[in-house]
Amino acid sequence: MKNNHNLTLTDVTTARRRIAPYIVETPVIRAHKLEPLFNGAEIYLKLENLQCTGSFKVRGVANKMLNLSPEELKRGVTAASSGNHAQAVSYVSSRLGVDACIVMPVNAPVSKVEGTRGYGAEVVLCGYTGEDRDQKCQELIRERGYSLVHSHMDPHVITGHGTVALEVYEQLRGCFDEIVFPCGAGSLTSGGALAMKLLDDTITVTAVEPAEVPRFTESCKAGQAVTVQMGQTIADGLRVSKAEVINYDLIAGNVDHLLTVDEDSIARAVKEVVTKAKIVAEPSACVGIAAALAGRIDTAVGRKIVFVISGGNIDPSMLADLVNR
Amino acid sequence: MKNNHNLTLTDVTTARRRIAPYIVETPVIRAHKLEPLFNGAEIYLKLENLQCTGSFKVRGVANKMLNLSPEELKRGVTAASSGNHAQAVSYVSSRLGVDACIVMPVNAPVSKVEGTRGYGAEVVLCGYTGEDRDQKCQELIRERGYSLVHSHMDPHVITGHGTVALEVYEQLRGCFDEIVFPCGAGSLTSGGALAMKLLDDTITVTAVEPAEVPRFTESCKAGQAVTVQMGQTIADGLRVSKAEVINYDLIAGNVDHLLTVDEDSIARAVKEVVTKAKIVAEPSACVGIAAALAGRIDTAVGRKIVFVISGGNIDPSMLADLVNR
Repeated sequence: MKNNHNLTLTDVTTARRRIAPYIVETPVIRAHKLEPLFNGAEIYLKLENLQCTGSFKVRGVANKMLNLSPEELKRGVTAASSGNHAQAVSYVSSRLGVDACIVMPVNAPVSKVEGTRGYGAEVVLCGYTGEDRDQKCQELIRERGYSLVHSHMDPHVITGHGTVALEVYEQLRGCFDEIVFPCGAGSLTSGGALAMKLLDDTITVTAVEPAEVPRFTESCKAGQAVTVQMGQTIADGLRVSKAEVINYDLIAGNVDHLLTVDEDSIARAVKEVVTKAKIVAEPSACVGIAAALAGRIDTAVGRKIVFVISGGNIDPSMLADLVNR
Repeated sequence: MKNNHNLTLTDVTTARRRIAPYIVETPVIRAHKLEPLFNGAEIYLKLENLQCTGSFKVRGVANKMLNLSPEELKRGVTAASSGNHAQAVSYVSSRLGVDACIVMPVNAPVSKVEGTRGYGAEVVLCGYTGEDRDQKCQELIRERGYSLVHSHMDPHVITGHGTVALEVYEQLRGCFDEIVFPCGAGSLTSGGALAMKLLDDTITVTAVEPAEVPRFTESCKAGQAVTVQMGQTIADGLRVSKAEVINYDLIAGNVDHLLTVDEDSIARAVKEVVTKAKIVAEPSACVGIAAALAGRIDTAVGRKIVFVISGGNIDPSMLADLVNR
């Protein structure tokens, strides 16, 4: 039984109209030079690395914040994140003229802290774990009246992220066989898969997570949202050990193939995407191509496959290491 | 007195229609993250690094070859090139089922030789200089009846490259103030500047060449096409010491600002484009951004400036070095 939590295509199309002034419609390109790596399929990339703040995250964040009341916006927002979500909340807050305080771990990379501050938000460094950060957010909500912009448990965030699928559908006039989402905490996958299946149920929806953090693969085996042990993955945007119920339900109900991929394939995928497709993608964004490289996706002649390149925020030193491999 | 060599906008629009099945209409993106480097201008990038074969070269080559007679095509083509032109001729020949023999220097990087062979052309390694290669091409023309696909002296190549400007004009609905071309042998600049001025004479056209090889800057000073001493530049696509008359005439007649830029700025520009705009661009493609970084372009608030990112074919090791700077 599919449980879409009462979310409809109109939730996604409404999000799309609402967030339009705050995002860019990113291009879909055909990556001719990646195609010889596979078996004849046409390979398309949806370039969310070219999105404002360098990742898809701004979509859901904008939709969430534009659904807050004027009073809530006046008081401000908070979010816990170590990466792309933090930058998206800071960016949208700045565009809306809203106070924002982002809670990041004390060991967050300087580049990400500076990126977040760069868009204007206050950054509070707090602890090392997600629990530490959530506690600090709750404090800010109590003390300052802030609203929480959660990175993946919020229906508005999920439907905002779902606009990626809507755009791909229009840009390719619905003419593709499969869409592949990178899967971490699952907000992009749950929103994207929902939108895709509501638009055209016959398009195959695939989600790929690192084998080192297979929270949804394990959840699907268990038949419920579970928490897995956190492994070591270079896909830092996908380092979330706990599957939340709403994301699990939408993924279990709308994703056809849920795959895991090894670290070597992820590293190789980054190099192939950078050197052949000529775009900068972070490791998290390349797990779909990695799964194809590992032979986990049907790349037969004539198939048209869209890979959502979710972001491009990779440290220069890691980028250099990966292209030098 | 402007000498456009009888080339008209119709030559460019005809080229556009003819080459459409062989190229992609590359996206123009707004590079929000580059804008804080300047003074408030809106920065747009025309992404020819995403073009087939990774550079704009395929446009002019396709237009030239589609203007050859069936008999000429049947006999085959030859070209002298150490880089992107070679790959473009190989690619278009393969698409048209035409024999091609590309003459490359014996010290050409293995990656470029393999890239050219990869699209199907025969590669002959010959000498070190342009003269060596031209002589070999003439031999092939005599012995095999091949037609020459020159990289920059041919009107069909020039008008084919001019389609870049036509696309930018449409994609931005004509709403921009300046377009900046990287300038080497001058085929992109001469075709692009011609098309731009024929479409809208009030849009500023700027061309940027490395200070180490200022052939058109010196030609404009001399009032005629001259040859300069070849300096050392990392912009390998722009390493041409001789200005040809047709390119000089079109540039002198249609370019408003002809700038030179230093090597440090070019290297920095590659890093900024890769890490902030999230695309892979070769040094030759970044000389326009380099000129802006060096303060040579008016980036005042409210101005909309389009930089043509001409290609993305950079060796992985050089890419790694530049982003690690």
